[in-house]
Amino acid sequence: MAYARVALIGLGLIASSISHGIRRAGLPTVVTGYARTEATREEARRLGLGEIHDTAAGAARDADLVILCVPVGAMAAVMAEIAPVLKPGATLSDVGSVKGSVIAAVGPLVPEGVHFVPGHPLAGTEHSGPSAGFAALYDNRWIILTPPAGSDPNAVAELEGFWNALGANVEVMDAEHHDLVLAVTSHVPHLIAYTMVGVADDLSRVTESEVIKYSAAGFRDFTRIAASDPTMWRDVFLNNKEATLDILGRFTEELFALQRAIRLGDGAHLHAYFTRTRAIRRGIIDAGQDTAAPDFGRGVSPVPAE
Amino acid sequence: MAYARVALIGLGLIASSISHGIRRAGLPTVVTGYARTEATREEARRLGLGEIHDTAAGAARDADLVILCVPVGAMAAVMAEIAPVLKPGATLSDVGSVKGSVIAAVGPLVPEGVHFVPGHPLAGTEHSGPSAGFAALYDNRWIILTPPAGSDPNAVAELEGFWNALGANVEVMDAEHHDLVLAVTSHVPHLIAYTMVGVADDLSRVTESEVIKYSAAGFRDFTRIAASDPTMWRDVFLNNKEATLDILGRFTEELFALQRAIRLGDGAHLHAYFTRTRAIRRGIIDAGQDTAAPDFGRGVSPVPAE
Repeated sequence: MAYARVALIGLGLIASSISHGIRRAGLPTVVTGYARTEATREEARRLGLGEIHDTAAGAARDADLVILCVPVGAMAAVMAEIAPVLKPGATLSDVGSVKGSVIAAVGPLVPEGVHFVPGHPLAGTEHSGPSAGFAALYDNRWIILTPPAGSDPNAVAELEGFWNALGANVEVMDAEHHDLVLAVTSHVPHLIAYTMVGVADDLSRVTESEVIKYSAAGFRDFTRIAASDPTMWRDVFLNNKEATLDILGRFTEELFALQRAIRLGDGAHLHAYFTRTRAIRRGIIDAGQDTAAPDFGRGVSPVPAE
Repeated sequence: MAYARVALIGLGLIASSISHGIRRAGLPTVVTGYARTEATREEARRLGLGEIHDTAAGAARDADLVILCVPVGAMAAVMAEIAPVLKPGATLSDVGSVKGSVIAAVGPLVPEGVHFVPGHPLAGTEHSGPSAGFAALYDNRWIILTPPAGSDPNAVAELEGFWNALGANVEVMDAEHHDLVLAVTSHVPHLIAYTMVGVADDLSRVTESEVIKYSAAGFRDFTRIAASDPTMWRDVFLNNKEATLDILGRFTEELFALQRAIRLGDGAHLHAYFTRTRAIRRGIIDAGQDTAAPDFGRGVSPVPAE
């Protein structure tokens, strides 16, 4: 049974794609929305994303599902605004990339009778804003739900069904494990990509135009994720501090071991390490989470020309 | 004026793509080739890559252009084999990712009268072997040539024309600068990607199946370059030791500064850093070295659904 009314608080890429996805799925759902700036609200109206309100409370009133789609650091403030108008029996969720700190900040503000089921869609592109959204964003992607102990199983199941209707797969885990898994698969990779791009940008002995010209040799793959929204990522690192620092520690340890092998000329160590990492790539392609097309099929022929 | 006879010593992705590219360009050129293993030679024959010989000297004899397409660590040995048969006036080039050490190892073996013009095509995919090659690999990619001081300008210009015919752009610079530029744009990014994938693979608290399932959140972008050929990359790091360690030092310095900002909760530092790195991405797309399609257009609709 679909939600009759879904409120999207925050109207960036993620919320916009939810709205497009609801329409594509043909759900009998009224979508309402709110964004902080008038410019974004205008853009959302122009894109036809739903009933756009000038206040968060206006958008959230009477909704059966409210999804907080603002940066992690802004969630508590917006939650305080909408808490008084939330309908008893409604489900409250979010799309934050960190779950422990969102639960700590938002959880205490959730009114009695409202089901709080935090969530995180593992989907996105390097583009931001309502115009960047599209219906297929969630196809075959994972949504992780982290309901606190004692959550209503029906509310969790209903939210799961909603995401399935948008094309996504759903996994349930506890918030702490989520934050560790994401530190490995997303947060530390992003930090490292940002760092590498920053180093290249800073290096006076190699010009920026050289870095850009020769980026296809590997660097380019880092720049895509280093182009992600700065506010969102600042909040991720401030809010998943512990797991990020934990995994960063492991990363620098391994990096130093490889650095030492280079310094000592230990080719066997390097070769063994580089061979082992190939297998995990194979697994990702087999799991349908990437394409085997060479070079991601960036505009080159994927098949040998004859 | 095209080379009448081009010998490809080593028949992996790079050499195979050169052969396909020569055919696509309609050059009046006989291609000969040699690979170390009978299996690769067989594969190359099946793909019709050219006259495949059982010895490197057989392939190189009478060639007007000989391109060494073996890993950097194997170049000196193969060069010793072909040196006696090289035709006076012929051009000798290579495709090694490191230039200083190749020049040091191969240069002294080049016979009088043979033009040595080292080269490095900044192109490739994560796949290896003759079957992975395709004609469009070099389209709009850069080839860096690093002729030693005193090289014959006609030989350099002729090689430049050859690569242009295959769709590539050519830049000439000195070997030392090449090795630094590549350390930034390719070698250190690869090392970091390998490290991150290794860390994820090792972490007992997060299963490999979780890493694979949730890889779309950023990690996936690292696995493509961490799936590159292990022998080639071992040789790159052993042969571009100095520049790699130099850039790695800068990288860890920056990473520690960001780590410290996370530990201290310095959001302003993080936000400023993440904003700066966005601009360089824009430059890469504008330069035609990547596509702005979200998510590299990995099988999702690149336009908002209406």
